[in-house]
Amino acid sequence: MNNDLTLYVAAFVDELVKVGVQDVVVSPGSRSTPFAIVMAEHPAINVHMNIDERSASFFALGMAKAKRKPVALLCTSGTAVANYLPAIVEAYYSRVPLIVLTADRPHELRDVGAPQAIDQIHIYGKHVKWFVEMALPESSNEMLRYVRMMAARAAAVAMTAPQGPVHLNFPLREPLMPTITEQTWSQIEAKEPSYIHVTIGKKTLEDEQFRQLYEQLAHVEKGWIVCGDIDKPGFAEAVTKLAEALHYPILADPLSQLRSGTHTKDYIVESYDAILKDETIAKILLPDVVIRFGSMPVSKPLLMILKRHPSIAQIVVDGESGWREPTYTASQMIYCDETEFCSRLAQFSTPLPRKSEWAETWRYVNKIAKEVLLEVKKENALFEGKVFIELTELLPEQSLLFVGNSMPIRDADTFFMANGKQIRVMANRGANGIDGIVSSALGASVVAEPLVLVIGDLSFYHDLNGLLAAKLHRLNATIIVINNNGGGIFSFLPQAKHKKHFETLFGTPTDLQFEHVVRMYDGDYQNVTAWDEFRYYVKRSTESEGLHVIELRTSREENVAKHRFLWDRVSQEIRKFLKKRRTQ
Amino acid sequence: MNNDLTLYVAAFVDELVKVGVQDVVVSPGSRSTPFAIVMAEHPAINVHMNIDERSASFFALGMAKAKRKPVALLCTSGTAVANYLPAIVEAYYSRVPLIVLTADRPHELRDVGAPQAIDQIHIYGKHVKWFVEMALPESSNEMLRYVRMMAARAAAVAMTAPQGPVHLNFPLREPLMPTITEQTWSQIEAKEPSYIHVTIGKKTLEDEQFRQLYEQLAHVEKGWIVCGDIDKPGFAEAVTKLAEALHYPILADPLSQLRSGTHTKDYIVESYDAILKDETIAKILLPDVVIRFGSMPVSKPLLMILKRHPSIAQIVVDGESGWREPTYTASQMIYCDETEFCSRLAQFSTPLPRKSEWAETWRYVNKIAKEVLLEVKKENALFEGKVFIELTELLPEQSLLFVGNSMPIRDADTFFMANGKQIRVMANRGANGIDGIVSSALGASVVAEPLVLVIGDLSFYHDLNGLLAAKLHRLNATIIVINNNGGGIFSFLPQAKHKKHFETLFGTPTDLQFEHVVRMYDGDYQNVTAWDEFRYYVKRSTESEGLHVIELRTSREENVAKHRFLWDRVSQEIRKFLKKRRTQ
Repeated sequence: MNNDLTLYVAAFVDELVKVGVQDVVVSPGSRSTPFAIVMAEHPAINVHMNIDERSASFFALGMAKAKRKPVALLCTSGTAVANYLPAIVEAYYSRVPLIVLTADRPHELRDVGAPQAIDQIHIYGKHVKWFVEMALPESSNEMLRYVRMMAARAAAVAMTAPQGPVHLNFPLREPLMPTITEQTWSQIEAKEPSYIHVTIGKKTLEDEQFRQLYEQLAHVEKGWIVCGDIDKPGFAEAVTKLAEALHYPILADPLSQLRSGTHTKDYIVESYDAILKDETIAKILLPDVVIRFGSMPVSKPLLMILKRHPSIAQIVVDGESGWREPTYTASQMIYCDETEFCSRLAQFSTPLPRKSEWAETWRYVNKIAKEVLLEVKKENALFEGKVFIELTELLPEQSLLFVGNSMPIRDADTFFMANGKQIRVMANRGANGIDGIVSSALGASVVAEPLVLVIGDLSFYHDLNGLLAAKLHRLNATIIVINNNGGGIFSFLPQAKHKKHFETLFGTPTDLQFEHVVRMYDGDYQNVTAWDEFRYYVKRSTESEGLHVIELRTSREENVAKHRFLWDRVSQEIRKFLKKRRTQ
Repeated sequence: MNNDLTLYVAAFVDELVKVGVQDVVVSPGSRSTPFAIVMAEHPAINVHMNIDERSASFFALGMAKAKRKPVALLCTSGTAVANYLPAIVEAYYSRVPLIVLTADRPHELRDVGAPQAIDQIHIYGKHVKWFVEMALPESSNEMLRYVRMMAARAAAVAMTAPQGPVHLNFPLREPLMPTITEQTWSQIEAKEPSYIHVTIGKKTLEDEQFRQLYEQLAHVEKGWIVCGDIDKPGFAEAVTKLAEALHYPILADPLSQLRSGTHTKDYIVESYDAILKDETIAKILLPDVVIRFGSMPVSKPLLMILKRHPSIAQIVVDGESGWREPTYTASQMIYCDETEFCSRLAQFSTPLPRKSEWAETWRYVNKIAKEVLLEVKKENALFEGKVFIELTELLPEQSLLFVGNSMPIRDADTFFMANGKQIRVMANRGANGIDGIVSSALGASVVAEPLVLVIGDLSFYHDLNGLLAAKLHRLNATIIVINNNGGGIFSFLPQAKHKKHFETLFGTPTDLQFEHVVRMYDGDYQNVTAWDEFRYYVKRSTESEGLHVIELRTSREENVAKHRFLWDRVSQEIRKFLKKRRTQ
């Protein structure tokens, strides 16, 4: 009998379940055996096997993000543990709760050249919120209480603002086989039942503080509400009400969850990136105050404007008490739940005059920009930006749109327009990596369907291993690969002028025919060459089961030219409008 | 003009070259632009592009290991940096010199939610020998001296015993484009020429210390020389001479580089793992003293014997002053260059009596074991172990055999027998991961050809991305995939008895048809079903260019049964011999 081990691990797993962890992503290994078996035995845990630990950890990240609840990760000792680092870094910066459980060699096998023993103590450095080197398994009542408390606390720390990953390292001695039976659960229940329940409150301000804020804002006509990546239920309605109360346009990043949904879109400005690219226009349309929620939006022109105009009063609201302020020009940092902040502040607002010239101007300018950008609808060529215009119409209700980094997220910013559907938009914007995107999206697909991922070819290549999960677990997902044969974003950067080494160092064409690998993972592959095909296959794949990969082959050169042409047109049309208005 | 940046980076790169770094593995990115361009411009540096940073870092590891010289790595900021961790951990424990160069955001963009900014300070923790947060680029003479010195020192630290990875983190501000011209090199040469030359000595002992050692050993008949992973030119000849002088058998791990080569094989024992599996036999053949070189061999029975018999005087010789001693029974730790140690100690030895019964017994026992194991030659079934028996004959002169972890390295231990060819055998035995093996082998293939990698299906899957390097850089490599559809090693462990969850948690069959992915990477794929086909395709692929993947589909169940049958036969035959000898 291996009682110490069995009871200790079972108590830990049981408590994890009791505090709400239902999913664990497991990579095969020997040292982690007791946890893997006990988890597989627990009636309320879903074990998701994922062989490549890098993909496994991004899979857990996507699932936790979509669930807004912690997901556990389990792997064996050695480099398996090291493979988690990229996803943990992403989870840390994007505030996703993960409970990372790593099996380790016991103390006497460390740093003596024993096999698969590496230094796992604090291996994720500052990229986890909490690290614990756990005690060796024992089954005294005290140690069962200890291990239960650690499980509850791990989930609590992961869920406390700012949410993020925690790491528990378990030294385990052989023999590693637990002796779990149906009685084990009642046995540990009898010995030490569930230990602690954690309730996490939300930060809010005093009435007086809201009143002062309202007084500060009431007489400022020119304001922006800026919403970056933020995905909290209730926020869309609350911030819409605040915008209505203050007559401030909402500059809404595609990840703000404000471009889709049933809330009113009257104040939503989607095209601010295109509008603000022209510095002359930007200067005319500058605000006096900015209220900012979520992380910094993807738009570089917006960032540059905030940096260059410290006279704009910038109020950063962060419900999770972080410091997302790369502009160095913020004047106020407010730690208050974002939804609470908007609702309470809106309540304070006495109705402002019905019409605001400022809000009207922004509404009009956004309309002009959108009209230009939406001309792409008529485009026959496979222009990358058009993918998102098409998707606005094609995506079914309740779908989850996962957007890859580098070009896709920028194109989503420019071309994914406001709509009334319930579409959730997700991306890995903590560290903006092109790694692990396939797995993150597939992890999210476990929670929300239909899932559509838009991804570039380099990023798709980077996580091809992630596709195995789709095959083994029969996940339903549509992956749209925009294949411009290399790193498309570099064509927009100064590097593009450096002809001599550009293709070798930055363009990096791979000439991969993804059809082969998609077939290996039992996926349906379509290379589309026209938009009617695209529409047909997207519709078909979101309505059917399994993995579907739809590839569009595009040209990096044409892509950058078309983008620049459109931005120039936006700029011309808005300049015309502003000139006309001035002369009226 | 971006003079500060250009001169600073050029001086660094120039110094790297001067201290002997010729290769850098680069992953595309924006922040790392100045280094990438300057390196591409430097006439004496080979830039190896590799898009997936995890594969890139293992590629660099394999190259550095094969070269026995530092290789540099370069990537941009963000999760790119995190993807290096598994290979860095492996490099640290397997003592491979790597110079890791990561571009970073400057201080003002850190920890404020700026894009692609993560905490890169000490991100590899204790798994690098040296970390430096570099100064921002400046081009004063002082700072050019500083940056040159850092380059020289990085290479020196990486090459100083124990060798390993070092990490230099470079904060860089925009604009990132260097203005490099042909004159840059002469310009920096004129300003601050090469700065320092580092000479690294070897540890040795005093004559008196050798004399005492010799006296200690001279009257001990029953000794073993145990050689684990060690790959130092000259060692094979030196340790052979020591064995001859002391009449001690050499228990030679496949990574000891002692099973192949032109040195005499009289004292080489390859089959000790199979012999020592039988505890009764092991007890009869126990030594009184063990002299151990290199890391702990892969053989578990050997490890257990050393652990269980603290009365055996165990002398660990480590030229790099580490602590590779997981048995906790060593009596002496000697920090002395291994080749020097063997040569000097052998010189002290007055000729011992010509015949040693002890050495003869071991020679005979090894012969018996080999005869049993080599019966597999006649086997028609696709038995995994036979791969290495076949390879002993098939591998051409000067080839490099790279062996995957988990089952392949254990099968190499059992079935790769002594031979007179110059075959170098490599594996990633620092942390024994199944990750990054394809890339490590391909990195080594840049240095040594023909290269043959033997790898299991899970490990092959884990680093399929590594194959892109073979396609893009037209590498020549033969990969033999032993596909038992899952984790074969678990069938040998107690987990195998746990029928309920075994296949789900440990067996993890993937049912992948690798042919598809091999085609995507322009490789030649062959599924062999008989040994004559195997021989034909191995021969053909080692004689031709490009990537060749030869797959053998085997059965996990049959494999474990056949291994156990053979070990049992070895045990029976040796017991017979020992009994006969006792009764003589």
